[in-house]
Amino acid sequence: MENILKDIALKLKNSDNIYILSHQNPDGDTMGSAFSLYYSLRQLGKNAKVLCTDEVPKKFQNFKSGYEDLDFEPELIVSVDIAATQLLGVKLEQYKDKIDICIDHHRTNGIEATLKYVDVNAAATCEIMYQLLVEMNINFTKQIADCVYTGMCTDTGCFKFSNVTSKTLRIAADLIDLGCDYAEINRLLFDTKTKGRLEMEKQVLENMEFYCNNKVALIVISQEMLKKTGIDSAEIDGISAMPRQVEGVDIGITMREREEGGYKVSLRTNEPIDASKICQKLGGGGHIRAAGCLINRELKEAKERLLEQIIPLF
Amino acid sequence: MENILKDIALKLKNSDNIYILSHQNPDGDTMGSAFSLYYSLRQLGKNAKVLCTDEVPKKFQNFKSGYEDLDFEPELIVSVDIAATQLLGVKLEQYKDKIDICIDHHRTNGIEATLKYVDVNAAATCEIMYQLLVEMNINFTKQIADCVYTGMCTDTGCFKFSNVTSKTLRIAADLIDLGCDYAEINRLLFDTKTKGRLEMEKQVLENMEFYCNNKVALIVISQEMLKKTGIDSAEIDGISAMPRQVEGVDIGITMREREEGGYKVSLRTNEPIDASKICQKLGGGGHIRAAGCLINRELKEAKERLLEQIIPLF
Repeated sequence: MENILKDIALKLKNSDNIYILSHQNPDGDTMGSAFSLYYSLRQLGKNAKVLCTDEVPKKFQNFKSGYEDLDFEPELIVSVDIAATQLLGVKLEQYKDKIDICIDHHRTNGIEATLKYVDVNAAATCEIMYQLLVEMNINFTKQIADCVYTGMCTDTGCFKFSNVTSKTLRIAADLIDLGCDYAEINRLLFDTKTKGRLEMEKQVLENMEFYCNNKVALIVISQEMLKKTGIDSAEIDGISAMPRQVEGVDIGITMREREEGGYKVSLRTNEPIDASKICQKLGGGGHIRAAGCLINRELKEAKERLLEQIIPLF
Repeated sequence: MENILKDIALKLKNSDNIYILSHQNPDGDTMGSAFSLYYSLRQLGKNAKVLCTDEVPKKFQNFKSGYEDLDFEPELIVSVDIAATQLLGVKLEQYKDKIDICIDHHRTNGIEATLKYVDVNAAATCEIMYQLLVEMNINFTKQIADCVYTGMCTDTGCFKFSNVTSKTLRIAADLIDLGCDYAEINRLLFDTKTKGRLEMEKQVLENMEFYCNNKVALIVISQEMLKKTGIDSAEIDGISAMPRQVEGVDIGITMREREEGGYKVSLRTNEPIDASKICQKLGGGGHIRAAGCLINRELKEAKERLLEQIIPLF
């Protein structure tokens, strides 16, 4: 593994025109990885470009200060934090068979690339990026440190989740020593809510349903609520965490109405309940503590189908 | 400073009967400091006792597994995370002039003690406790590591606040390597809410008031709401954070009705607004980003008095 990282560092140093691909619906980890690599390559005098099917979200706009949108043909294409080519999205689909270097931390990574570094023990792709940039002898400016820190705190819920390791925290400590603006980044990402999100939280709290002696909590997010509050996918993620956060609840369910009809179901569970097993029975899948499925039915029937799988567990 | 910590380590090693005082309305830092010291002293074969005016809160109950409530007279009294003797509470008031060792991180510490170690740059008293226990050559069991970690994540909002330093994160990394149950501790402290708290959040969201072009958000917590939801002081703290979390808000105000009448006002501000300056004008005080005061008036008048100080700022 160590050798592959060295090979990637060498390949990047020996190339002059580099495209960096990030995944659609971009989060802090794919954006932080892409922009930290961009600024590092620019430091080495290379042409580099960050590509994404979607716009850079508002909260990562500061990543773009100092960004020059250069026009050039790539000799090297790098994907960061992308687990599968489907996640490239429409605009980047054209590069799906042309990825030279893949850097990621997803267990399910299925990207084909000449040089592939997938560390499933890394809490974030930015954790790998830090090691790569050290290997490349990059001068960590405040901006590069900010990008890397953002990815690391995004994917760990600000160092809260079980994917955190002592290595994660030591790298974050290094980034603080390098001058990253950790307190402000944390405040923007974890301590600020839009009015739309608060409105959604209120509605969700008013309508939360409980089953199985309060061990199961369920919320429904309708298209009407989504339109009224105008919240984005990152905010919906925070809302989906709410049912499982209730004391005593072991299965938290979020049913999100789709524009085309039916419901996108997201399950979050506590030990020892396997969320992916439940979702598999309904044609979906995922991780042990978080999984999902689609149920193409009206609300009442969709709920029944779901609860049929859950009630026997208690 | 280093020398004082060495002196404290030596004094503890040379004493056999030790009382450890924690502050009233105990939080994770005073409890984590007290119990980590208790188990360390027991490891050295000493009589030790953790004292607190209030009960050990439910979420720190695991600190007590293995705790023996010994009956002995103290030859040494240590206070941990206590900034002032008023915070000892009724049961521990008797020890206010008898504190031999004071370990704390509050800027305003006013405790008189023979050996006093107050590090205002430490994010938590548990950060100091870790260094003391290393100095004492303690064998960090999982339980001791859990206690220390709990204090550190409590006082930093799970490593989110600006009081975090690279030293904080490196000590937390060491504690993970020592086997502390960080993911479960984080989940219990930062990812679990009682139904009472959710009910309070809902009511607060329904009634949040905005002033000064949405730059000021205000919530009122009535005695009726407190009684109905039954939430404790740690949960009220989470509620008080809500108004300042709204995007665009620079001053978040919580007015909590007191049982004896009047309102306990808590202010949280963003840069550059000085919360303590505003509260000082109303007879209170505190920190730059978080301060408080008492207004002994009916709700309408109390609100007016407060807003009089705030409106001219915008």
